[in-house]
Amino acid sequence: MASPAMPAAPPTLVEIIAAKRDGAPGDPAAIERLVAAMMTGELADYQLAAWLMAVFFRGLTDAETVALTDAMLRSGQVLDLSRIPGVKVDKHSTGGVGDKVSICLAPLVAACGVPVPMVCGRGLGHTGGTVDKLEAISGFRTHLDADAFAGIVERVGCCMIGQTSQIAPADKRMYALRDVTATVECVPLIVASILSKKLAEGIDALVLDVKVGRGAFMKDAGAARVLAQALVRVGTRAGKRVVALLTDMDAPMGVAVGNAIETAEALDVLAGGGPPDVVECTLALGAEMLVLGGKAGDTGAAREALAAAIASGRGARLAERMIEAQGGDPRVVADRALLARADEEIVVLAPRDGTVARVDALGVGLAAVAMGAGRSRADQAVDPGVGIFVEKRPGDGVRRGEPLARLCVRSRAASAPLTERVLAAFAIEDAPPKSRPLVLDRVVEADARSSTTAPGSG
Amino acid sequence: MASPAMPAAPPTLVEIIAAKRDGAPGDPAAIERLVAAMMTGELADYQLAAWLMAVFFRGLTDAETVALTDAMLRSGQVLDLSRIPGVKVDKHSTGGVGDKVSICLAPLVAACGVPVPMVCGRGLGHTGGTVDKLEAISGFRTHLDADAFAGIVERVGCCMIGQTSQIAPADKRMYALRDVTATVECVPLIVASILSKKLAEGIDALVLDVKVGRGAFMKDAGAARVLAQALVRVGTRAGKRVVALLTDMDAPMGVAVGNAIETAEALDVLAGGGPPDVVECTLALGAEMLVLGGKAGDTGAAREALAAAIASGRGARLAERMIEAQGGDPRVVADRALLARADEEIVVLAPRDGTVARVDALGVGLAAVAMGAGRSRADQAVDPGVGIFVEKRPGDGVRRGEPLARLCVRSRAASAPLTERVLAAFAIEDAPPKSRPLVLDRVVEADARSSTTAPGSG
Repeated sequence: MASPAMPAAPPTLVEIIAAKRDGAPGDPAAIERLVAAMMTGELADYQLAAWLMAVFFRGLTDAETVALTDAMLRSGQVLDLSRIPGVKVDKHSTGGVGDKVSICLAPLVAACGVPVPMVCGRGLGHTGGTVDKLEAISGFRTHLDADAFAGIVERVGCCMIGQTSQIAPADKRMYALRDVTATVECVPLIVASILSKKLAEGIDALVLDVKVGRGAFMKDAGAARVLAQALVRVGTRAGKRVVALLTDMDAPMGVAVGNAIETAEALDVLAGGGPPDVVECTLALGAEMLVLGGKAGDTGAAREALAAAIASGRGARLAERMIEAQGGDPRVVADRALLARADEEIVVLAPRDGTVARVDALGVGLAAVAMGAGRSRADQAVDPGVGIFVEKRPGDGVRRGEPLARLCVRSRAASAPLTERVLAAFAIEDAPPKSRPLVLDRVVEADARSSTTAPGSG
Repeated sequence: MASPAMPAAPPTLVEIIAAKRDGAPGDPAAIERLVAAMMTGELADYQLAAWLMAVFFRGLTDAETVALTDAMLRSGQVLDLSRIPGVKVDKHSTGGVGDKVSICLAPLVAACGVPVPMVCGRGLGHTGGTVDKLEAISGFRTHLDADAFAGIVERVGCCMIGQTSQIAPADKRMYALRDVTATVECVPLIVASILSKKLAEGIDALVLDVKVGRGAFMKDAGAARVLAQALVRVGTRAGKRVVALLTDMDAPMGVAVGNAIETAEALDVLAGGGPPDVVECTLALGAEMLVLGGKAGDTGAAREALAAAIASGRGARLAERMIEAQGGDPRVVADRALLARADEEIVVLAPRDGTVARVDALGVGLAAVAMGAGRSRADQAVDPGVGIFVEKRPGDGVRRGEPLARLCVRSRAASAPLTERVLAAFAIEDAPPKSRPLVLDRVVEADARSSTTAPGSG
């Protein structure tokens, strides 16, 4: 009494949601269908939201994460940089406070012969964004079309722009929905979001800087390692060479936290100066990029090449050419005083003798947002000239009345709450803190192998 | 360096979703806030969808389920029947195939002195609905306002209407969203949905008929018992007296599956006839209602009272008065042939000798939908006159060529697929099946105690 055999109907969207909810085996085809339906409007936002929450609990397999990455990157423009010779390498950071490394890293790596096509983000919440920092350079344009971008990478060696609405629009939509449905903190969704944007740039290889600590998205090293491994695994499955470093983000990076003052600090590195942690992070990430780009046999040789590019001024020259090509004033590279800075200064003084045990990057980052250096909503403007100089670092001895921080502000009026806020970020104790290295771990493809991406949770 | 103490800000909607996602302790106040925000539009559908999926995985505590029930019932009109003397008792079934019990049960219980205010559902998918069956009675109105409804309960003893848009609109909205986001099969959400509608009727006590088997929402007794226990626990916490019976729904109930033919079969019971399982289900549920209503000391005495109401014709007279009060033709009670029936008949014959091992209620239910007796979408109309008479029951002996079923159709054209479909619902074997009782279990408050409602899963 069996009915005649019929071809199985493709699953409905509700059936796709139910299958993920019930932990059914990975189904990359279902993910493609879902993203396609999202872009046509066939999939309603509430259905996507339910699916995202089911993914939070059930995870995605690597094959599904690759499918999601691929579907999202193909939802928009995919750059073709194949006409540019060499291995194109980019760097992505998961975001921190005072992280201005991209601004010195890209010209330095390009100066060593590796083309760097870099699409950067804007600041949101307590973390800053490279686009905001670059825009502190007079005339610098971060909105360029794909041809102009590719042309500058080809001619100069690197180009740094902001994300356009043409790049991975599906990711933009999905991220906006995750933000309001409590589904941001989910490893496979984070992986697909990062990689879809980066892979749309036309790169061959990618170095990831996964930040760990109070000022980072990932608060502990275990969670950060899970994310780094998933990024390396999925990026590799998607056909790219990928290395990830886990780096410390308990305290703000460097001294400057703001826009113009961070750009100045990054340019200090190209001039042979800059705070030691900014220099170290630049060299560590740059070394990985040079090795992936085939311009050094190992990271030791790569660090030497980078150091030589600083010493010879080739990195600085390349930065000037890039800034000029993007409409900015290249004189800032030699004369960082050309960068805007708010006139008024507030000095935050140490309330006691002792050793700085901690500087809370989150607290400093939120204070910078409150000053106008960052934004709490995506549609807010930032003030390039304000910011915080973190004068004392963890491990530094300090005497009562010495400056802990200097704040560049537009007005000294009503500064007490701000001073209190910055002061609260410093812990001064009698004993020095345990020191921890900047680079906490390194994840390459062989370390990252595992069959499935773990379910959600930050 | 601590900031001055500040009053804690109430959680945002995203924080409420995240708390449920993370399995935070039960928070009934958050549920109230969520439903209120849903009704004002502050909570977007995609946020509700994400919360529903988080509830699927994390469950709700009983206190949260009570809060959800309460918030949903208070989102609309709550009837006040306190002016009507006596304990008002209703019955709710989780839905099955051929379940026409309400139509004979309400008048019979009312004839024994217990007021029955009953708000009934429409059919959807393979399960039928009492409202569709009642509307097969010429002139019968199932849309009455609250005053008319209360007046008929007071004057006649029972009244049966359809759900109005004034009753628990929040449930209506939440259910519509659950239906398209794969979050229907979740015990605490089912409990709140059922109870919010029933408690809005102004009842004092409720008897639940939780169906189990192929034709029911709950396919196995374990899952059905979990649902029954949650319904009894939460209903009791909400201040009502609640009893649940688990009843068999592997095979269709009774002989008739359709609208007019089911109404006729229910009226047969009031005339002292009707299939044994329909009679037994009516007596079992009615006995619980009489005990809860204080009109019988135990279910044995209650069954005797119900049997007497049948034998004396008091149940039938009360049905006539209710039908007349609701605008229908009361003569159908005595003369069931007045009910519409499609003219054409197709007989489905047994293909072999043997014993009927199974009649698949789901298969019969879907065949009835295909004939026009039910609907697959909420906006479809039904044909009251079509249906299926299931002539052979599990355990019945059958000879090749004997009728298994008779289909009442509008046209005999293209009947082969339908015949095949109904035939496929019958399994004929050599050995008789194990018999199983109609009432599988009984759940009262003392059995149902447990601190939390289990997470989702049907």
